[in-house]
Amino acid sequence: MLCEEIFPTRCRLAHFIGLGYNLIMPTLRERQKQRRRDRIFRTAINLFREKGFHHTTATDIAKASHVSRGTFFNYYAYKEAVLLDFGAQQLGELREQALAELAQGEPPLQILRRLWNRLAALSELERALLSPLAYELLNPDPQRAKAAFEALPLGDLIAEILRPLKAQGQLRQDMSLERISRSIADVYLLSALRWAAYTPGRQLSDEMTKFLDLMLEGALARETGKPEKAARTAQKS
Amino acid sequence: MLCEEIFPTRCRLAHFIGLGYNLIMPTLRERQKQRRRDRIFRTAINLFREKGFHHTTATDIAKASHVSRGTFFNYYAYKEAVLLDFGAQQLGELREQALAELAQGEPPLQILRRLWNRLAALSELERALLSPLAYELLNPDPQRAKAAFEALPLGDLIAEILRPLKAQGQLRQDMSLERISRSIADVYLLSALRWAAYTPGRQLSDEMTKFLDLMLEGALARETGKPEKAARTAQKS
Repeated sequence: MLCEEIFPTRCRLAHFIGLGYNLIMPTLRERQKQRRRDRIFRTAINLFREKGFHHTTATDIAKASHVSRGTFFNYYAYKEAVLLDFGAQQLGELREQALAELAQGEPPLQILRRLWNRLAALSELERALLSPLAYELLNPDPQRAKAAFEALPLGDLIAEILRPLKAQGQLRQDMSLERISRSIADVYLLSALRWAAYTPGRQLSDEMTKFLDLMLEGALARETGKPEKAARTAQKS
Repeated sequence: MLCEEIFPTRCRLAHFIGLGYNLIMPTLRERQKQRRRDRIFRTAINLFREKGFHHTTATDIAKASHVSRGTFFNYYAYKEAVLLDFGAQQLGELREQALAELAQGEPPLQILRRLWNRLAALSELERALLSPLAYELLNPDPQRAKAAFEALPLGDLIAEILRPLKAQGQLRQDMSLERISRSIADVYLLSALRWAAYTPGRQLSDEMTKFLDLMLEGALARETGKPEKAARTAQKS
């Protein structure tokens, strides 16, 4: 507005050119911003790995990535938001693998179990990052917890994987696919939290697998053999 | 030691008398300590309810219960330890009810579901206290988390309730009773945490019941009707 008042014709021209240019590729300014964000992100993740999340301050990250503390907070409103970016990247990769396997016609339960093992391996490898990330999902501030859940839609991914089973009547019908999937995602969250908090000696994958078995097959004995095996056979035929 | 050095005979006599007396009832000093602990406990719980847990400091509690800050910390090493006492009392009452029902021969699954409803009602009623208590169970300090779990043995209570079913072969045999019971207790913890953190609008009991159903019966469809009904009938016969 102010620009047009001072140099009306020239600015309108600049806006017109800029508009066309923006349709093709990001502006220099946008690319600079993205590069700076990447630099802050990588620097922060490296610091978290080296010094631990709780021992790294926003000032540490700002200094090491050559920006002011204020600039850091322009990109990430709080330290945990860097972890959300990290988690979203990792989950995005797991999602691509799972969807590719679905597209190849692999049995959903097999894909779910593979996702589970990958999640366990990732959590063990990146414990220093995933433990504070899991706590962020339970942040007592509802806005923060909501932002974390929206950044990490594990429940949605599980629903995508299980949808074919639901369609074939192989999931219980008295509960929505979303509820079942969210509960399974919750079980990952709790296993990871408990494991990170006080049973790091045990293997997380074992804890997670047993818990998933309970969620899928239940604690009560089944009268007709292994239900999962039956479901797999039915699906293959 | 010092006492005996100064008044050897008198002290040995006092110790001897004290020993016999202690077998019958607590000393005056012990009763005073217990009364002070009760006072601090009640004062703290009232303050937590009035001002909220996070807005109540150790200094507030000490002042309101007419003791020094140091004395408060002699009784409770940290503020959350008051909540552990509170939770242990509540769980103790739930345990007595459940064991009485078991002794009366009621079906274990019915007792478990009743315990579940009582836990939900209690959590909704005492949300201001149970939400920070649930977080204490996941305290990143392993010593604190361990102390919290030992103070609140919900998994052990669930194992006591389900033991008869295990003995009758009505629970899956490929997982220990302890593992199953601990996982069910975990599901309460997670439901309570999530509910307290960001879905207080929804009913906790509904969330908890659906989650328990998944744990007991599984997400995969069963071929032979409702398994729980079958289990109940088998048990009555």
